[in-house]
Amino acid sequence: MTVAIAADLGRIVGAANVETRPAALVPYRTDATFGFAGTPAAVVRPGSTDEVSQTLAWASRHSVPVVPRGAGTGLAAGAVPIRGGIVLALTRMNRIVSIDPVDLTAVAQPGVTTQELARAAAGHGLHYPPDPGSRHVSTLGGNVATNAGGLHGLKYGNTAGYVLGVEAVLAGGDVIRAGGRLLKDVAGYDLVRLLTGSEGTLAVLTELTLALRPAPAESLTGLAYFADLETAGAAVGGVIAAGFLPATLEFLDAGCIRSVEAHARLGLDPTAGAMLLFGDDGGAAETRRTVSAMADVMRAHGAASVQVAGAAAESEALLAARRCALPALSRLGGATMLEDVGVPRSRLPELVRRIDAIAERHGVTMATFGHAGDGNAHPVGCFDPADARQRARVAAAFDDVFAAAIELGGTITGEHGVGAAKLPYLQAQLGPAQTALLTRIKRAFDPAGILNPGKLGS
Amino acid sequence: MTVAIAADLGRIVGAANVETRPAALVPYRTDATFGFAGTPAAVVRPGSTDEVSQTLAWASRHSVPVVPRGAGTGLAAGAVPIRGGIVLALTRMNRIVSIDPVDLTAVAQPGVTTQELARAAAGHGLHYPPDPGSRHVSTLGGNVATNAGGLHGLKYGNTAGYVLGVEAVLAGGDVIRAGGRLLKDVAGYDLVRLLTGSEGTLAVLTELTLALRPAPAESLTGLAYFADLETAGAAVGGVIAAGFLPATLEFLDAGCIRSVEAHARLGLDPTAGAMLLFGDDGGAAETRRTVSAMADVMRAHGAASVQVAGAAAESEALLAARRCALPALSRLGGATMLEDVGVPRSRLPELVRRIDAIAERHGVTMATFGHAGDGNAHPVGCFDPADARQRARVAAAFDDVFAAAIELGGTITGEHGVGAAKLPYLQAQLGPAQTALLTRIKRAFDPAGILNPGKLGS
Repeated sequence: MTVAIAADLGRIVGAANVETRPAALVPYRTDATFGFAGTPAAVVRPGSTDEVSQTLAWASRHSVPVVPRGAGTGLAAGAVPIRGGIVLALTRMNRIVSIDPVDLTAVAQPGVTTQELARAAAGHGLHYPPDPGSRHVSTLGGNVATNAGGLHGLKYGNTAGYVLGVEAVLAGGDVIRAGGRLLKDVAGYDLVRLLTGSEGTLAVLTELTLALRPAPAESLTGLAYFADLETAGAAVGGVIAAGFLPATLEFLDAGCIRSVEAHARLGLDPTAGAMLLFGDDGGAAETRRTVSAMADVMRAHGAASVQVAGAAAESEALLAARRCALPALSRLGGATMLEDVGVPRSRLPELVRRIDAIAERHGVTMATFGHAGDGNAHPVGCFDPADARQRARVAAAFDDVFAAAIELGGTITGEHGVGAAKLPYLQAQLGPAQTALLTRIKRAFDPAGILNPGKLGS
Repeated sequence: MTVAIAADLGRIVGAANVETRPAALVPYRTDATFGFAGTPAAVVRPGSTDEVSQTLAWASRHSVPVVPRGAGTGLAAGAVPIRGGIVLALTRMNRIVSIDPVDLTAVAQPGVTTQELARAAAGHGLHYPPDPGSRHVSTLGGNVATNAGGLHGLKYGNTAGYVLGVEAVLAGGDVIRAGGRLLKDVAGYDLVRLLTGSEGTLAVLTELTLALRPAPAESLTGLAYFADLETAGAAVGGVIAAGFLPATLEFLDAGCIRSVEAHARLGLDPTAGAMLLFGDDGGAAETRRTVSAMADVMRAHGAASVQVAGAAAESEALLAARRCALPALSRLGGATMLEDVGVPRSRLPELVRRIDAIAERHGVTMATFGHAGDGNAHPVGCFDPADARQRARVAAAFDDVFAAAIELGGTITGEHGVGAAKLPYLQAQLGPAQTALLTRIKRAFDPAGILNPGKLGS
């Protein structure tokens, strides 16, 4: 079987771009999700849309699963080949095709990293806002396939807001182009948005047309400490009610603050009950005025102390507290499970209160950080990976956290995706009629079920 | 048949909310599209989601087409019951359920008009940006079902950018809820966006959760005249390249300027070759600075003359030139056919040049206005409705206009939709594989084909 695969696929992508040796396949057994692994028969690295098309046509004929993969930074086991088959690694398709400063668009292949595109855009005085935590390595294809989020969702939205067009290969090998270098196009169902976030289960993305924006002249961050998350939540509401739409509005709970400080010695206040990072970008003078006015709102809403960065470098230093929350927490217990629930912004303090109660009830160490502006929380369960019972308690606690998020009108995943990890929880949020509908949509695209099976739509 | 329908449906929605008398059905035979009419068997006015569900379950059992309808202002015959059946008029479901100033969301039934929602939001100091031309009468349900555009797409996007969640009834009567009061939710395929713009062919929208924004303190408009559209197009490029993302960037060609001036006597320069309306909104001081700086860019790019409004009332007066372009043109020849093509922003001058050449070749009167910031052009063909040959020449000219838009990397519809009117042209843009895929998606939702048949997905 393996030999036949290698020969057939080698004729399509070149022998050097097919790998079937077990040792070489090890990196493709997992992504960045704890506890999920598969056994691929081969990894294939196509160099063109045509090679993707031929590979999918071959896989359809032979009923072989195909799992598209970018950098493998996903946190929902979306790129794990849980049913075996071919891992289709798109990292060789890594060309920025064009950047157009009048149309404000970039055209790029899926293997370009988010950071490469952001830098190329910056070279034209333009801004590509989505910035998932993994942006220095994660690919645009993966970002689009998962509708990745980031630190600036409230003002700028997620990746989906920047996807104007896609070229995609259907399961049988047909190539379609939906959308394009257009702000407005209502010809047909919105396949651009249906494919965005479809996690490789409907088609393989082979080219992306992305929206850019003028680069802001200034970007400034402030930090506020609060006695507890309720007070911080009230301050978030106060900032919104005052008419601001901050580019940054992030939170860390007490456990996160202490861990980050122990880990990174940033000079944070380890006695604080909660911390908000807030900020904006735009023209230099307005941005300073806006961030200063937001600081006043924080003080008026009971912040224990507030500081505003004097310059961009200091802003980055403040954001470092947020960016290193996960690495800091992963030192606490040895291993971490990171989750990704969302609620309406106004319900976030209630959600975190419930998370704390759930952690206590299950006797697990859990701390929460996330996007206060978006209502998106990342509770992190810390445990000793050698202790199976501890790990099971964390998993059981997360079951309760998902139920709490749904009960508060929220979601089991705000930005990480469903993958194999969240699939068992999906119906609790969507209900049976909608879940069945997803399966019918999946079949409309992929009747034989070869695209990333065992994930969305399965 | 009619008697049976009336009795069955009367039991669901109440006898007073079912109408089968031919005279009373006349308004439901058409929408605002020239040349399309159908013959409905009944109009049904449900008062609740449950009544919509029961009506659809009944229609499924009896294989009766159902055509959802808001205010009937559509310009692509999307609400015309071309295969007969029931017109499902959603205007009784016209309640604004809630407006939340912290979550920045509104929840509304589909029969609420765009303007009612915008006013209710303004009462909370909030802004609902989408403003299609028909906003004083068109409904949110229709806006969402068609992904309606408007005058501020470049900065604010279209209706789709504001749809966070929907409640929808599937063809068999099942009720689903997708999305919600959340900025970020990636649990499942993006049904919110798939239903947005699906023109009543996949499900019936019964409740909408919409995003609001803080209201801008100031909104200011300027006007610039140019010798021709090429020069105006270069100025548009100059404004974007200078780092502005204007809230307004509209154009009128020479024919539109002359017609508007003849019709409305606004004091426009009838000798100008092209006119741009540009503007921005935000904080008062920044907005004035920004619009003034954009005026400088217009001058630097060869504007013959530029004026900036002194205040909001004057801004509205300038925008009146754009808003009355269609009524003015409809006086020229008796009847008008309004079209809606889009191209990448940088290709707009080329598109309008081709439209002019096409009009000349076919010997028809055509003028073009539209959204320069979005690359969305509305060519208007003027003709004597009693002259069938003139009308046919306009239709033939539009065939060429669609082909030109597609050739320039554009779309046959930027914001009006496909409906029955554009369906014959869809495959030329999307290709056979994508067109077939739309049909498979349609069947995944509506296997019996009762929802708005003869439109998208048929």
